[in-house]
Amino acid sequence: MTAAPGELRRSELHSSLADPVMDTMNFLNEITMRYPEAISFAPGRPYDGFFDTTQVFDHLHRYLGHLAERGLSPDQVRESVFQYGPAAGRIRDLIAGSLLADEGIDVPPESVVVTVGCQEAMFLALRALVSGRDDVVLTTSPCYVGITGAARLLDIELVPVRERGSGLFPADLENAVARERALGRRPKAVYVMPDHSNPSGVSMPLDVRRDLLDLAGRQDLLILEDSPYRLAGTARRLPTLKSLDRDRRVVHLGSYSKTLFPGARVGFAVADQTVVDPAGGRGLLADELAKIKSMITVNTPSLSQAVVAGALLACDGRLSEFNRDTSAYYQDSMRFTLKCLERRFPASHRATAGVRWNAPAGGFFIFLRVPFHADNAALKRSAQDFGVIWTPMSYFYPRGEGGHGIRLSTSYLTHEDIEEGVSRLGEFIESPMAPGEPGA
Amino acid sequence: MTAAPGELRRSELHSSLADPVMDTMNFLNEITMRYPEAISFAPGRPYDGFFDTTQVFDHLHRYLGHLAERGLSPDQVRESVFQYGPAAGRIRDLIAGSLLADEGIDVPPESVVVTVGCQEAMFLALRALVSGRDDVVLTTSPCYVGITGAARLLDIELVPVRERGSGLFPADLENAVARERALGRRPKAVYVMPDHSNPSGVSMPLDVRRDLLDLAGRQDLLILEDSPYRLAGTARRLPTLKSLDRDRRVVHLGSYSKTLFPGARVGFAVADQTVVDPAGGRGLLADELAKIKSMITVNTPSLSQAVVAGALLACDGRLSEFNRDTSAYYQDSMRFTLKCLERRFPASHRATAGVRWNAPAGGFFIFLRVPFHADNAALKRSAQDFGVIWTPMSYFYPRGEGGHGIRLSTSYLTHEDIEEGVSRLGEFIESPMAPGEPGA
Repeated sequence: MTAAPGELRRSELHSSLADPVMDTMNFLNEITMRYPEAISFAPGRPYDGFFDTTQVFDHLHRYLGHLAERGLSPDQVRESVFQYGPAAGRIRDLIAGSLLADEGIDVPPESVVVTVGCQEAMFLALRALVSGRDDVVLTTSPCYVGITGAARLLDIELVPVRERGSGLFPADLENAVARERALGRRPKAVYVMPDHSNPSGVSMPLDVRRDLLDLAGRQDLLILEDSPYRLAGTARRLPTLKSLDRDRRVVHLGSYSKTLFPGARVGFAVADQTVVDPAGGRGLLADELAKIKSMITVNTPSLSQAVVAGALLACDGRLSEFNRDTSAYYQDSMRFTLKCLERRFPASHRATAGVRWNAPAGGFFIFLRVPFHADNAALKRSAQDFGVIWTPMSYFYPRGEGGHGIRLSTSYLTHEDIEEGVSRLGEFIESPMAPGEPGA
Repeated sequence: MTAAPGELRRSELHSSLADPVMDTMNFLNEITMRYPEAISFAPGRPYDGFFDTTQVFDHLHRYLGHLAERGLSPDQVRESVFQYGPAAGRIRDLIAGSLLADEGIDVPPESVVVTVGCQEAMFLALRALVSGRDDVVLTTSPCYVGITGAARLLDIELVPVRERGSGLFPADLENAVARERALGRRPKAVYVMPDHSNPSGVSMPLDVRRDLLDLAGRQDLLILEDSPYRLAGTARRLPTLKSLDRDRRVVHLGSYSKTLFPGARVGFAVADQTVVDPAGGRGLLADELAKIKSMITVNTPSLSQAVVAGALLACDGRLSEFNRDTSAYYQDSMRFTLKCLERRFPASHRATAGVRWNAPAGGFFIFLRVPFHADNAALKRSAQDFGVIWTPMSYFYPRGEGGHGIRLSTSYLTHEDIEEGVSRLGEFIESPMAPGEPGA
């Protein structure tokens, strides 16, 4: 197998490792390290200005106190932090309570699986739902690289459904489902991020949410609803697909990385679907996800769960309130970035410059269209010659198309950096040697 | 896809979910909950008597102080707990330092990947190394269910190599490799647990370790060395395969769950193999594992890493010293259990009773052979009628064979429980209605 002792050929490793999607974050990190003076609109980095390490201690104390109040002995309290726990998690009741308080999602705690970030929740759902080579999962395109990467690792084919300006059109999805069926394939689920999508920043209008649920019923599909940026937006939120879901068509995937803190790596799946086994036994899809999880990470760290639980207790489950300052920060950054873009590229000037962008009401991301191929070479030139970094949108298309887009993340920069960054970006975009031109 | 709205048929979910190995822990948990008065030799549960929740706070403080001493600004210290981190981990230098101090394993920090427990490390290694349908991984049989489960999730075929009384015979492994090659398959790696193996309790003698490394070189195999119970044993340890490894044949898999605490869920892989890409570029296998990890759990929780780092700092990386009391506890429990077994089944009596067991020098597990089929039905009867629980060894054979064994875990019981438990076990084994007999 090895080329020489201690050497392996990459061609003999799993095929996913040759896929550029698995390397996107590495390339971004390298560019960022190589040009430390550049202003970076690249990482979807949560803002940490309101966080203090003492909060970790407070949350942990609060949770331990809560367990003692509920009558647990000192030994049991110690175990709740020290020991392994159930694969499905220790704090399912608190998460279910928070979903009800904050989102009107009314599900039993048994339908919740606590995961190592939302990424693991995605991975579990894909693994559970796809059983054969003809099974496919549909996704908006562009989509979060995490779903593409997870699918690659599991040799699962993702069928992209192109977003139009305002996002996913259910008719496009229905056509894609029909096409796949005609090819003999079985569409099992569709992956969407209805709120402030990563990467395109779009949110799904209410009527589209309802249409999508109807479609899922009609076409017998599950919906994987990924929701990390829900609380990074406006106070007025549209209902989640899960809260509108009457027929348990939706597996809701959640994250505490953009609300509490990413360093805990706690996310969850809500999977209240019934699973019927051949003998007629009935269980929950959540139980199946937990079984899979037990063979990947065994259980989410008790320590992380304890800290998240302490934070949920601090706000009676109302994360939206807990997160109000951070959320306001994100909104302000988004508004300010949009204002800077408008100043730099006034409406009269945009068509000439070949530039346009959307105007998300919240979240981390703006989709900026540019008049050249925004690839890794362009990114390198932008970082080196103009001191500004961004993410090529091409990273987010499962089949690699979509080369003229840039993702701008606004989540953690100061006004000063945003202003200067947009100015540099403008110079780069309008530079005579813009990539895509001859000689560039 | 669904049987009715909100219903899924298990037959349409991934095939692993129909495999009993994915359910073993569930069944044990159910039995344990149903018979709370029974004495349980079942779970491989770490002892927590020396743990106090205040240690978590101390470790975290120590690590934060360490970062400040190293010159990090308060913002950087905050980020080190709050933010996402590199997929390969934040504390690789401390882990590499500890491996050198404690184990004589001399590897660069870049070859370490910090994982969510050792289970994730196994999963990453399997995913990286197996690329096609003809690739197979060999394993001792019996083996830890975690490797079987991970392989099932990835549709990877495990080829079992039966242990004999004292463990794996390299000649048996070499024969299995030859057989697989003759069938057109490509053996990529072999999974072993050389120290106090779960489930059979055996340790690999030094000459077998050397022979295994020679074999790996001759047959061009990687060795996945799983080492969770290394410090749960005697003070005199045999060298790890990794420390004997001159040709980078060994991927070493480690865990802090049996030394620091399972609630942190921190493990690691050491993968210092070179990966050569088609263009001639060279990197480390660790980099490839980190890429895979970024699509499963993104990164190991910064919080867990910080607490583990604080503990490693407390003992200058010498976990063996840090863990001395717990290790002594495990040894004492093991010795006492063996003594009770000898008393209950004196040598003269063993053959008649059809019972025999091995005598591990450390670790958590004893392999007890019984004269009947030790299946779930027998376990239920043992719990219900005799008040004693154990783990059927059949769980640990990838192809389901091996029905006459029982795994006894001695890791967390008191002397009183061990004495009473062994007495009940004796009654169960000698009961006239022992399963396997007519009418049982």
